[in-house]
Amino acid sequence: MTETAVTGQKRDAEDAVHPFDEAIALDVVAEGWYVGRTHAAYANMVGPFGGVTAATMLRAVLDDPRRLGEALSLTVNYAGPVADGPFDILATPVRTNRSTQHWTITLTQDDVVTTTATAVFGVRRDTWSSTEVSMPAVPAADEVPVFKVPALVAWTRNYEMRYVEGALPDMDSEPQPDSTTTLWVRDFPARPLDVPALTALCDVFYPRVFRRRGTFVPAGTVSLTTYFHAGVEVVEEQSDQPILATARAADFGGGYFDQSARLWSGNGRLLATSHQLVYFKY
Amino acid sequence: MTETAVTGQKRDAEDAVHPFDEAIALDVVAEGWYVGRTHAAYANMVGPFGGVTAATMLRAVLDDPRRLGEALSLTVNYAGPVADGPFDILATPVRTNRSTQHWTITLTQDDVVTTTATAVFGVRRDTWSSTEVSMPAVPAADEVPVFKVPALVAWTRNYEMRYVEGALPDMDSEPQPDSTTTLWVRDFPARPLDVPALTALCDVFYPRVFRRRGTFVPAGTVSLTTYFHAGVEVVEEQSDQPILATARAADFGGGYFDQSARLWSGNGRLLATSHQLVYFKY
Repeated sequence: MTETAVTGQKRDAEDAVHPFDEAIALDVVAEGWYVGRTHAAYANMVGPFGGVTAATMLRAVLDDPRRLGEALSLTVNYAGPVADGPFDILATPVRTNRSTQHWTITLTQDDVVTTTATAVFGVRRDTWSSTEVSMPAVPAADEVPVFKVPALVAWTRNYEMRYVEGALPDMDSEPQPDSTTTLWVRDFPARPLDVPALTALCDVFYPRVFRRRGTFVPAGTVSLTTYFHAGVEVVEEQSDQPILATARAADFGGGYFDQSARLWSGNGRLLATSHQLVYFKY
Repeated sequence: MTETAVTGQKRDAEDAVHPFDEAIALDVVAEGWYVGRTHAAYANMVGPFGGVTAATMLRAVLDDPRRLGEALSLTVNYAGPVADGPFDILATPVRTNRSTQHWTITLTQDDVVTTTATAVFGVRRDTWSSTEVSMPAVPAADEVPVFKVPALVAWTRNYEMRYVEGALPDMDSEPQPDSTTTLWVRDFPARPLDVPALTALCDVFYPRVFRRRGTFVPAGTVSLTTYFHAGVEVVEEQSDQPILATARAADFGGGYFDQSARLWSGNGRLLATSHQLVYFKY
């Protein structure tokens, strides 16, 4: 193989669309109406990985010429499973103010609602700033081994995960008194971070109940809220380097538990905080 | 005045509708369509106290004969100010599953959207349970003096607040390195706790930026999400006793900050966790 051929191959790989971008791609049908489709690489136990569904719903607003400013908050409610195949997204700017804009977003299949969302977009202004919480003290990403993901669900293979604490339980795991999981994580293959990828990463944690009980039980996110603290430029400065993600539950019972997460850039900027309510059995 | 007359007066007071119940009262227009009205006692700087707006939107689902189960999560987005006077609420069960139900709720005035919400309702089941976080170690409510609320906004007079830490700043306050506020709180006059009252209490904290900066700056909630951990029976067991409420921010900047809160029953049950994104100036 000549050197030119090798260079050519490399350029093809660089130009190839990342599976994440394929998974969240939308075709415009009319103003605020999009068609997307599930992607085999991001399949979960039932339907697609919730993080990719959230990113796809945000994508609809990001693609809309009516959009004002950047994503500030996003709440996604997982009402029912998304079946393999195409889906419709309807995104409506229900209120546009001088500097903020409120959206409702609905994902349907054959006119049946599977997912609802609301998003707040807005213009960031230069104000007093302070990050009050601390990034966990952890070894550098390249000092932590890459976790070998078991072949349970497809989507986990699209992330390079380096667990600092609280790795996925295995056959030998015991119940734990604390549900905290902290990991260095990035898309795999590596892909420059943007707001949709960050949105998906907010849901990258396996269910906290697995860790507390030391085993797998049926579980699925019911509602997911993300607050975007960093502006788009700060998010994109991260490029394709690992980010630090940490999550913990407050309460389990009655068939539900919560999870609160913080996502940090490699150089210690708080990119997003995220909260979810999760259904579980047993 | 005869003893009978006194007893009669007392009975009248006990039978009187609490201002909170007046404030969140709704009249049914048609299935899922309600009319409510702002209440002077719950006025904030601009429009009503956000906690009462959230409780009113939840009330619409609670009053609906189509409702399945109990409130599990509620997200309210404050899109624009609610003007003094009547408003319409439209509550739609967009998806009903075997044990969960997803709602969208919209508050409008003259067909202009001021507030949107989504709620997840569901049946609680008997599962493994654990409260992973700890209630702060604090003195008993009756050992903490009642805070004398300045006459800035009407709604604060409807709550008996006993600050354990992080009271509202005054003219002598300095900036603080930590935004935490912890207080014993209940409705005033005392009123048995229920899910709508708990919903409002999740928003009882003054803006965290006041504490960090030691002064008042314009601020208002943009999006508020509440997870209801305790079932209705546990909430109602609390009766009219103070609950312990604690809140803290993670990040301030670009004109927005977040707040995470936990609300505990007097005997140490985690009733709700709540998260919000808040707009601020300067």
